[in-house]
Amino acid sequence: MRLLWRTFQGLAKSRNRRLLATTTTRWSGRNQEEREQRQDHQWSHPDSRLEQLLYATYWAGGLALAYHWLGPKKTDLLAKEAPAGKDDEEEVARLWHVTVRSDLPTYKQAQVESHNSAEARIWVTYGLGVYDVTDFAENHPGGDKIMMAAGSAIDPFWAIYQQHNTLEVLELLEGFRIGNLEGGLAETSVETELGSPWAQEPQRHALLKPASKRPFNAEPPIGMLAENFLTPNELFYVRNHLPVPVITEAEYELEIETGCAKPPLTLTLAGIRALPKHSVTAAIMCGGNRRSEMTKFKAVKGLSWGAGAVGNAKWSGARLCDVLAQQGVKPDETRHVIFEGADLDPTSHPYGASIPLAKALDPRGDVLLAYEMNDEPLSRDHGYPIRVIVPGTVGARNVKWLTRIVVADQESDSHWQQNDYKGFSPSTDWDTVDFSKSDAIQAMPVTSAICTPQPGSRVRVDEDKDGGHVTVRGYAWSGGGRKIVRVDLTNDEGQSWHVAELEQEDQPDGRHYGWSLWTARLPVTEAQRKGGDLEIWAKAVDSAYNVQPEKFEHIWNLRGVLANAYHKVRVKLV
Amino acid sequence: MRLLWRTFQGLAKSRNRRLLATTTTRWSGRNQEEREQRQDHQWSHPDSRLEQLLYATYWAGGLALAYHWLGPKKTDLLAKEAPAGKDDEEEVARLWHVTVRSDLPTYKQAQVESHNSAEARIWVTYGLGVYDVTDFAENHPGGDKIMMAAGSAIDPFWAIYQQHNTLEVLELLEGFRIGNLEGGLAETSVETELGSPWAQEPQRHALLKPASKRPFNAEPPIGMLAENFLTPNELFYVRNHLPVPVITEAEYELEIETGCAKPPLTLTLAGIRALPKHSVTAAIMCGGNRRSEMTKFKAVKGLSWGAGAVGNAKWSGARLCDVLAQQGVKPDETRHVIFEGADLDPTSHPYGASIPLAKALDPRGDVLLAYEMNDEPLSRDHGYPIRVIVPGTVGARNVKWLTRIVVADQESDSHWQQNDYKGFSPSTDWDTVDFSKSDAIQAMPVTSAICTPQPGSRVRVDEDKDGGHVTVRGYAWSGGGRKIVRVDLTNDEGQSWHVAELEQEDQPDGRHYGWSLWTARLPVTEAQRKGGDLEIWAKAVDSAYNVQPEKFEHIWNLRGVLANAYHKVRVKLV
Repeated sequence: MRLLWRTFQGLAKSRNRRLLATTTTRWSGRNQEEREQRQDHQWSHPDSRLEQLLYATYWAGGLALAYHWLGPKKTDLLAKEAPAGKDDEEEVARLWHVTVRSDLPTYKQAQVESHNSAEARIWVTYGLGVYDVTDFAENHPGGDKIMMAAGSAIDPFWAIYQQHNTLEVLELLEGFRIGNLEGGLAETSVETELGSPWAQEPQRHALLKPASKRPFNAEPPIGMLAENFLTPNELFYVRNHLPVPVITEAEYELEIETGCAKPPLTLTLAGIRALPKHSVTAAIMCGGNRRSEMTKFKAVKGLSWGAGAVGNAKWSGARLCDVLAQQGVKPDETRHVIFEGADLDPTSHPYGASIPLAKALDPRGDVLLAYEMNDEPLSRDHGYPIRVIVPGTVGARNVKWLTRIVVADQESDSHWQQNDYKGFSPSTDWDTVDFSKSDAIQAMPVTSAICTPQPGSRVRVDEDKDGGHVTVRGYAWSGGGRKIVRVDLTNDEGQSWHVAELEQEDQPDGRHYGWSLWTARLPVTEAQRKGGDLEIWAKAVDSAYNVQPEKFEHIWNLRGVLANAYHKVRVKLV
Repeated sequence: MRLLWRTFQGLAKSRNRRLLATTTTRWSGRNQEEREQRQDHQWSHPDSRLEQLLYATYWAGGLALAYHWLGPKKTDLLAKEAPAGKDDEEEVARLWHVTVRSDLPTYKQAQVESHNSAEARIWVTYGLGVYDVTDFAENHPGGDKIMMAAGSAIDPFWAIYQQHNTLEVLELLEGFRIGNLEGGLAETSVETELGSPWAQEPQRHALLKPASKRPFNAEPPIGMLAENFLTPNELFYVRNHLPVPVITEAEYELEIETGCAKPPLTLTLAGIRALPKHSVTAAIMCGGNRRSEMTKFKAVKGLSWGAGAVGNAKWSGARLCDVLAQQGVKPDETRHVIFEGADLDPTSHPYGASIPLAKALDPRGDVLLAYEMNDEPLSRDHGYPIRVIVPGTVGARNVKWLTRIVVADQESDSHWQQNDYKGFSPSTDWDTVDFSKSDAIQAMPVTSAICTPQPGSRVRVDEDKDGGHVTVRGYAWSGGGRKIVRVDLTNDEGQSWHVAELEQEDQPDGRHYGWSLWTARLPVTEAQRKGGDLEIWAKAVDSAYNVQPEKFEHIWNLRGVLANAYHKVRVKLV
């Protein structure tokens, strides 16, 4: 049995995880950063029970395979004979839900299904475990979304939202265990890795540092970010909310529903390419960029991004305003344009977001149905074959794998539009937050970051006739097309400020969507040299003369978005 | 002689200043706030010597009258017998330039005129004094603008830019005295008050508190500002750069030069009124609003505005985009629209400013040729008969008494566009400033102010079931049509923030040009009550989630513009 245990462990940890997809997926959940992303992904549409069950069955393939390998009896024994050391606790906990508890009764699937409301008690299954989560439901960090799994399996949800796969959560769940599911997963058809939504994730550059692996979210080393005015495609940060869909050029279709007199339009990739081609240089920034700094002041929920959740590229494609005008869409301040991607959540609902129609129709808005990034076809991670580029607007609205556009009277009702990517007062907490009271982030505020030197690094002081200097380099950007007009640096807490040299495109204000790179040579005093430590601050000013706030304390928000305080880097002088 | 001196004093101080316009004007220059406005008004166009002289002659009417009354001999005696007490020093100094100095030679006008360059030495006259200011010229706070008066009279300039009329400046000038002007001002035609550019200033509401009287610049009591969502016209702050021109409806013409195929257009007031009428609610804010707070951190140059250099009104008129489109103007990102007013500087150059053509042509930009303010015809102080309203843009571009519009390849070359109303780094001082390196302010940054309670006031703590509260009320606004999405208040230095209730129009973002009024009920702790003092901070957040900076220290700039740090008010609890 110990041999079998070790074999299980080996399989789980090996590179060849094909046969244990779901289980190995869970292993990656131990990452501290992933734990912090609770709330980062939720879903907003309840769906038919049947559909959920079908989906659950489909998704549980990997898990079923593990079950098939080990079987209830084997895992039962395994659990009992598993190593008891503290380090192994989490690994053992990962087996609980595939382990028959002989101290508990067995329930039929139909019995579980009847417990699908607070009144009837809320039961869920996970593997072959049956759990009564009624008393927990109202404390669920994801709110009432837990009800989507009421009376059914949570497996498909947890397979995507792996923030659940921590020892704490597994222990919590096992505490609600009331029985075993009759037949367990034995009835589920055994599927190969091909059945996993993660089976066809693209290869990524080894330098992209993941904030989470599934869904894949990663940023390049910030030290490399200011090396190129146009960020190399393979180093451009990736922010996926769901598995990357597989789309072929032949299959691709974009539906456009305008609600105008004209019938809905379906465009092929060739059809989009045949439209007049426009290019725009635009930085795309995640709403959570620099969250890791904000969370140091007070913990926030979300992926732990550094300052690298931003990139600058030349995007090319058809102009959305042309397509909408062609369809007869007229300006209307009350309407919105909803975008849907081909990336589906476990209930088969697509990722979605919306922008005001006014932005979409504005020729100066430069909204593109983009098929090229820096003159190359979009990569799969960046939305192949078509992504909407909404310059100046938070990354979340730049929907990838775009399959549907709807001109509507309301914003997108997606989770990401309604219950995420919004700002709140520093005193708003998870007990008091009301997402309906806050505006969805569209244009982003002014920000900047020091890319080199990096925090904690040893920095050489350059000597010249004016004395010692250190060279500092970084990026700055503001949303809404607002040009960066100045970046100020200080190494004495603002006693003296030094204006950086800017590298930026010659674009008009209001349409200056690309970022600005900047370089400053900061004088270093003798006293600073002797001290050895130097703290450098950067702050940017945009064309509306908005400036970054000094610190995170007064802009803190529970989701850790809009983290645009001064960027402060402490280094050692050599 | 002493009797005559007293009579002079009495005349100068009396309400009936008609006969001593220039002299009394100077008396008002003792105001500390006016002294601070050095640099606030400069002019940018050198002009023909002849034109200057003619203008000088015209303007010097008031001064000439004083001269006529008192005559060289009288003032000579007066000066000698004037009271010698310290309090009277400034009054005596005001007579020096109308006093013959028998210890100095007499020069002819032609001699003065020949000294009009650094090489030939720079001479100027003031009254009957002749001064060699060559060595001072490069230290002139107004820069090389002093050269506009080289070889001629400074009187007309000083008559408008009364920041010169302080004891310090008068002493400085007298130190450069080299002689007396032959004939003095005796040759100048004597004119009545009607000849003074200030003769026909409109009546103002007694509650408008002047930051300077000539030109008239005044704000309402800030405690009244949040009482009305639409600021009453007579309490709307006034920011004049020059004397208020007199324009009749019959005379009024607006020239429009687009450089397009169509010939220049001249519109009468009736013609403008005949165009489709549009209305927009827009706050107009002076670039120097809240300067008096910034200057407390470190002195800045400019009118000492409180937080009342802002008002919110419903403006109505013709849309500039319609007029320009009618003239065949096409979008061009590189072009600008220059506005000129009927208000003339001493060289007969009009007040001027410009905005990007893109703003002027954008139907969502809502730029108006406005003839109504809150459904009433514009008052003279607000630009009768036509003022351009550029919503979301700093007040300085909302040119009053609009007489000329030019679509041009360059920004306005006016002083106010090129050498004023720009932001700089906190470390930029008057020795290092280069106005050509900074962008003219257009859209304004997010800001807010507490209107009640007012600083130092005694505030009653309201009791209710939740404990004690104080009610705080104010305004918030952001430029560029960005809606205010939240106003946060704290009375414990940001330990806890309280979200205010907003009163605002239901306008779409990007076109939300009106301000937001807000009200918050701030809980007061027992400890705060016992302490007696309470400091309240307000900060606003706009739709791009830009926030106000915490303090003035890091946004300080030498002109004291863009003073949008948190508004902090300290009160006493009752």
